[in-house]
Amino acid sequence: MTSEAITVLGLGNLGRALAEAFLRGGHSVTVWNRSAAKASELAVGGAVVAPTVAEAVASADLVVVAVLDHPAAREVLRGADVRGRALVNVTSGTPEEAREMARWAAEQGAEYLHGAVYAVPQTIGTAESSINYSGSSAVPARWREVLGLLGKVTLLGDDAGRASGYDVAILSAMYGLLGGFLHAAALARSGGIRVAELTPVLLSWLADLQPALVTFADEIDSGSYAAGESSLAMNQTGLGMLLRAARAQGVPFAALESVKELVDRQVAEGHGTDSFARAVESFEASQRFAGRE
Amino acid sequence: MTSEAITVLGLGNLGRALAEAFLRGGHSVTVWNRSAAKASELAVGGAVVAPTVAEAVASADLVVVAVLDHPAAREVLRGADVRGRALVNVTSGTPEEAREMARWAAEQGAEYLHGAVYAVPQTIGTAESSINYSGSSAVPARWREVLGLLGKVTLLGDDAGRASGYDVAILSAMYGLLGGFLHAAALARSGGIRVAELTPVLLSWLADLQPALVTFADEIDSGSYAAGESSLAMNQTGLGMLLRAARAQGVPFAALESVKELVDRQVAEGHGTDSFARAVESFEASQRFAGRE
Repeated sequence: MTSEAITVLGLGNLGRALAEAFLRGGHSVTVWNRSAAKASELAVGGAVVAPTVAEAVASADLVVVAVLDHPAAREVLRGADVRGRALVNVTSGTPEEAREMARWAAEQGAEYLHGAVYAVPQTIGTAESSINYSGSSAVPARWREVLGLLGKVTLLGDDAGRASGYDVAILSAMYGLLGGFLHAAALARSGGIRVAELTPVLLSWLADLQPALVTFADEIDSGSYAAGESSLAMNQTGLGMLLRAARAQGVPFAALESVKELVDRQVAEGHGTDSFARAVESFEASQRFAGRE
Repeated sequence: MTSEAITVLGLGNLGRALAEAFLRGGHSVTVWNRSAAKASELAVGGAVVAPTVAEAVASADLVVVAVLDHPAAREVLRGADVRGRALVNVTSGTPEEAREMARWAAEQGAEYLHGAVYAVPQTIGTAESSINYSGSSAVPARWREVLGLLGKVTLLGDDAGRASGYDVAILSAMYGLLGGFLHAAALARSGGIRVAELTPVLLSWLADLQPALVTFADEIDSGSYAAGESSLAMNQTGLGMLLRAARAQGVPFAALESVKELVDRQVAEGHGTDSFARAVESFEASQRFAGRE
């Protein structure tokens, strides 16, 4: 691979891992961070530390942004001359935030690609890392090999908001699971069960659930919930038992009640024998969206 | 295997699958169901249909109960003479409900084992089915081979409530994931993304999360949250972005706010740099429990 000049803005755990992966790939890496201490550690690894964002951006054709959130990304880039640069922003944010950044970049004469990272910083650059991108196809056309140093590259089209659209959906499911896991841990603990003893049983059951989620996805896409093997009514009973058990163990959790409300509403509308997946229709916006189609 | 006389009370999807697995194993099966129609279908498969619970219980030494919930199980067994019988109750319920049933069975002179089933009815009797049991060790001592026909047998000790203790914890994590999945589907749909397109990416990411859950479990058991690679503060930012995105897409979800509250409370108490797993301490009962140790 030709050695390229690459700039990384932001040296949190993720930014640093990205810079290190580029350095390992034999590229010339310029880094900038709001607080200089983290940047100077990377200087030992061969990176050039730029004193300002403007100088960092000026020194490379590819500029990768990895900061805390969208306001921080906007703040960091404001004032830099990004004309003619390829901007790859892997800062987490909403689809609309990514689109706003893409519009700004277009006004400045830069190509903009937004990335959503599926990796912990420790796995960046390994086979366990995967990044979804969307936005200007000019960026992967020119930089695909370099982006490949970070992890598996998946392109989701030219809407800069699409990678984030996937991301917020995936993160929402993840936090549902994490919240459920914390509650499971609290329930286990209140029942004198070690969490480490529970977790393998839990993981095995969650793995067994995967085919059900694939079925639910098809039911939701088709809007056809008739052939449910896990009915709303059965799940309503199960959730009711669970809420009772959680209260009895002194560990109530409002999140679980919110899930039950999705089910309750569909049962109240007369769909008790339909598949659990119909509970998605309780999200009003979804119903409005479905109604618009 | 010797042919045994086994009774199954309750012929919902689960009870019917249990009865069929016993029949396939070559046993003499007596069934009873509140509504007789389901029972007569099984008669074709070789089961004897008993007109009353009392007659069903009288005809076998092993009585398996699979009904909707604890009140239904109590109602079904009331009035039957269970003396000298082995009762295996796989009806979902709270730990306290299982213990109440075990006390009742002991008063009646029956041996009581409670089971929590990890299978859909279609997989009962296959390698994908697994059942956790707890309660009287006399039951698996005598009936282990027969119970093995239903799926993998795991014994969790002589507290009849323990299998349910595991179960409520596992179900809570499952419903966290299912609620998160429904929200992810609603978010995807509102963003014009097919759920079937999102789901494989989601499942792959959830599988990658498993090692993190194992780490969290150890952190929670040890109460040592210092070395977090996924800090509470980072997750607070991520959850804030997610709530913003969900609102912007017209799909708010209160469950996600409940998860964020667990995180917020720990950050407010000054633990922002600690591991995400510390959020479990926001469940007050857990804190009281930890305080008692």
